Amino acid sequence: MEKQDLIYQKLLELIKLDDLNNEHMYKNTPASSASIPVGISNRHVHLSQSDVSLLYGENYQLTPYKELAQPGQCACKETVILCGPKGALERVRVIGPARVQTQVEILSGDCFALGIKAPVRISGDISGSSGLTIIGPKGSIQLTEGVIVAQRHIHMHPEDAKRFSVENEQVVKIEVDGPRGGILNHVLIRVSENSALECHIDVEEANALGVQSSSSIKIIE
Amino acid sequence: MEKQDLIYQKLLELIKLDDLNNEHMYKNTPASSASIPVGISNRHVHLSQSDVSLLYGENYQLTPYKELAQPGQCACKETVILCGPKGALERVRVIGPARVQTQVEILSGDCFALGIKAPVRISGDISGSSGLTIIGPKGSIQLTEGVIVAQRHIHMHPEDAKRFSVENEQVVKIEVDGPRGGILNHVLIRVSENSALECHIDVEEANALGVQSSSSIKIIE
Repeated sequence: MEKQDLIYQKLLELIKLDDLNNEHMYKNTPASSASIPVGISNRHVHLSQSDVSLLYGENYQLTPYKELAQPGQCACKETVILCGPKGALERVRVIGPARVQTQVEILSGDCFALGIKAPVRISGDISGSSGLTIIGPKGSIQLTEGVIVAQRHIHMHPEDAKRFSVENEQVVKIEVDGPRGGILNHVLIRVSENSALECHIDVEEANALGVQSSSSIKIIE
Repeated sequence: MEKQDLIYQKLLELIKLDDLNNEHMYKNTPASSASIPVGISNRHVHLSQSDVSLLYGENYQLTPYKELAQPGQCACKETVILCGPKGALERVRVIGPARVQTQVEILSGDCFALGIKAPVRISGDISGSSGLTIIGPKGSIQLTEGVIVAQRHIHMHPEDAKRFSVENEQVVKIEVDGPRGGILNHVLIRVSENSALECHIDVEEANALGVQSSSSIKIIE
């Protein structure tokens, strides 16, 4: 493990899971055997370590701020400004730790504010996606691609996959109850040994279906 | 017809349906026999004539700016600022003509920005709903109720209701195709002699389901 990863892990251990976070970001609830907890994501950014250096200064290390449900993932103290040809979005949260590839996940409605057209993609699939400018306190980055609207998906451990009778990369439908309830198609199953059971939808999807951080959803087919 | 209504009608006639509007507001498409055009509404305000006077000056008349699909309805040149305990939303469009009762229709996500909790309600059903402050160039209004998140609904003429085998106030489900498609429950049918066929959803619902102004939806049950 590299020194920067060790520092990051140490900081993660020091975090208290308290009421620091009043944002709309990856909140979740325990699952019953049939229902799946929901993580609601707002726009956010994953940065490569070289881009962290460009935005925050040479060898700068991201500062974990709140642990997320996915093991090792964390909302960081750092935020950036996203700029497109029509406008800017301020205080966009950085998610740590640093990744191999910088990726910006925005809301569909942000495309209008920024003046760009980001495709609906699964995380990591950024080839030919949109670009924009990321601004930090010490510099900026001109991304030519890496901006997506995240495709809704369900993280799960292989044991969960067995329990729900689904497999990795299967596309399912999910059902949401309540006065704004409905069914969302094209939800990708992502199975990994390092994953906690959690359905990721974004703020617009959550608001449209009346989903809150305490809600859970069901796979229906 | 009162003088102010006559002025409003005259202005409406003068509007050219051109490219003035680059906003996310009530765009629609022609319907086939099976599909229903969609009108996508952003946050907006309906004002009583007395509130128009309070915000814009005594006897001020709203200025039509772009005709909407519903006969006689129009996006106006005027905008207001909405203020809650946590924040403000600027450039919120006024929809004309003036109504008996002032009503503010916001997005679910706006509740977070404003710091209020608006219920999901059908237009007109504002008893016990939220309040906020509306700011205009000549004054402000402290609303104690009238702020809602609009329940999705389908406007139609009695002839359409026959064709779709539905009746006024029936609650149906609608289906949206495409890569972000799905089904939305609890869509209210509103039948009136003055209505054009149009399914009204808000910007968050449209973005979550990948619905655009050129999309159409189907009633499925």
